[in-house]
Amino acid sequence: MNGTERPDLALLTNPTSDRVRSIRKLSGRSARLRAGRFVVEGPQAVREAVRAAGRSSGEGPARRQVVVHDLYATVEATHRQPEIVAMAAGAHLEVRLAGPEVIAAMADTVSPQGWIAICDLVGEPLDGILASAPRLVAVLSQVRDPGNAGTVIRAADAAGADAVVLTSSSVDVHNSKCVRATAGSLFHMPIVHGEPLETIVEIAREAGLRVFAADGAGDLDLDELQNDSASPLADPTLWIFGNEAWGLPGRSLGLMDAVVRVPVYGSAESLNLATAATVCLYASARMQRTLS
Amino acid sequence: MNGTERPDLALLTNPTSDRVRSIRKLSGRSARLRAGRFVVEGPQAVREAVRAAGRSSGEGPARRQVVVHDLYATVEATHRQPEIVAMAAGAHLEVRLAGPEVIAAMADTVSPQGWIAICDLVGEPLDGILASAPRLVAVLSQVRDPGNAGTVIRAADAAGADAVVLTSSSVDVHNSKCVRATAGSLFHMPIVHGEPLETIVEIAREAGLRVFAADGAGDLDLDELQNDSASPLADPTLWIFGNEAWGLPGRSLGLMDAVVRVPVYGSAESLNLATAATVCLYASARMQRTLS
Repeated sequence: MNGTERPDLALLTNPTSDRVRSIRKLSGRSARLRAGRFVVEGPQAVREAVRAAGRSSGEGPARRQVVVHDLYATVEATHRQPEIVAMAAGAHLEVRLAGPEVIAAMADTVSPQGWIAICDLVGEPLDGILASAPRLVAVLSQVRDPGNAGTVIRAADAAGADAVVLTSSSVDVHNSKCVRATAGSLFHMPIVHGEPLETIVEIAREAGLRVFAADGAGDLDLDELQNDSASPLADPTLWIFGNEAWGLPGRSLGLMDAVVRVPVYGSAESLNLATAATVCLYASARMQRTLS
Repeated sequence: MNGTERPDLALLTNPTSDRVRSIRKLSGRSARLRAGRFVVEGPQAVREAVRAAGRSSGEGPARRQVVVHDLYATVEATHRQPEIVAMAAGAHLEVRLAGPEVIAAMADTVSPQGWIAICDLVGEPLDGILASAPRLVAVLSQVRDPGNAGTVIRAADAAGADAVVLTSSSVDVHNSKCVRATAGSLFHMPIVHGEPLETIVEIAREAGLRVFAADGAGDLDLDELQNDSASPLADPTLWIFGNEAWGLPGRSLGLMDAVVRVPVYGSAESLNLATAATVCLYASARMQRTLS
């Protein structure tokens, strides 16, 4: 038995050590960019990161590269989630044991429930994604709320989308609230970030994707599109979702093939961004599978 | 011009007054129950509360009773949202002017952006709702996160649902995070709370509603149901959504006419509760409008 097959027995107990301080600093975006790393908290997200890292380093076609550098857990957490310990061993990752106060000091806003992983920032080049003949891509344009962004990444994963793209002015996907809201989907879905909307639309159109924006004032009704037996929703599609408060600016709407509204049948002014995006992505997923 | 037509000129400036303290206490559930009142924060929710109160007190068919007792705003807020001041006058409600520190002291977790209303707790009797031939009702069973509950209320309103029912063990809809997440829909939708799930299902079935539960392990696929030209989704339906972590207990699933899963086409383990509920409610809304 070597060191990678069981948890390290040297327990970290100092919540003010240099190691803990340097990890804690990764709660800030500029520190993450400098280090090229971010913090993953909680058993669900850590499990998916370790699983993806195992695929990346092991045999078989690795869908995408996920690099886990360090893995920390409380003794209790290794007993609660022995499957993460086993997966870590399979991925040649050492689990460093740490006291609960150390894990808490490493974490940002949420309870880490005994697990912390330090990973390389995620992100893939836009042209590579769009060259791989995707059928469904979600774009978040100037989305600022990390919970919304993470929820859309999770929903895009569930709807079988090929990638999620965040424009250069959107929230950082490595924000701890965003990572938590993705519920592990950050490590399933190819993520692109840092490109302006105009570039994304241009490359998508060259790749043969229809470009739809979701907007409450759109001239096409999503439900009517779903009831159309020759619906464009069945075609390969790039969906663009705008800011929580102001949506998409008028000059951006002009770039689209169509602006689609989720119909409001009751008295609500609008839908929450993440729920509207989910309805659109699922409509496309169903129509692509039904009509194609 | 009488006192109800323009803001009261006596500015409240003491954030530690008895009045402010007693309002601040309403952030606790037991204090809300004792007082029979809750705090509504922010211009969007306050606007919808005042609008609904105006309908309740005025002519025309009042869909439901919304009672606003007190209305507080900063001078700046009355300039930013003069339409709320006008609506308040129409509803014979006085706007009490208060300093920003007073408004902040009255509010709970979120920035009140200059507006606070004190309203009667909402809630209607279950049998009254189900006797009114509803076509679409959402039930939240043991849903504990106020943001999720509020987002589902907003989505149910958007999908044209007739009511939202919260079981006795669910979060309090008057929680400030829940109120905020409803984005005003708390004052559009009839809300029922405090009934056990078994009673809700029994009365719904007597009222002729199909009873569907949403569950990731359900045996019916929502997308296949949408592709069925004789789909039961077109019938009057009560949808039941379970707890964020554990869903619906097995004995509850046995009460349903069907357990329906939102299909997961990608690698996500599941959807977030509020997004899954939105997809189900919109599927029903579309099928009811298409096939009926």
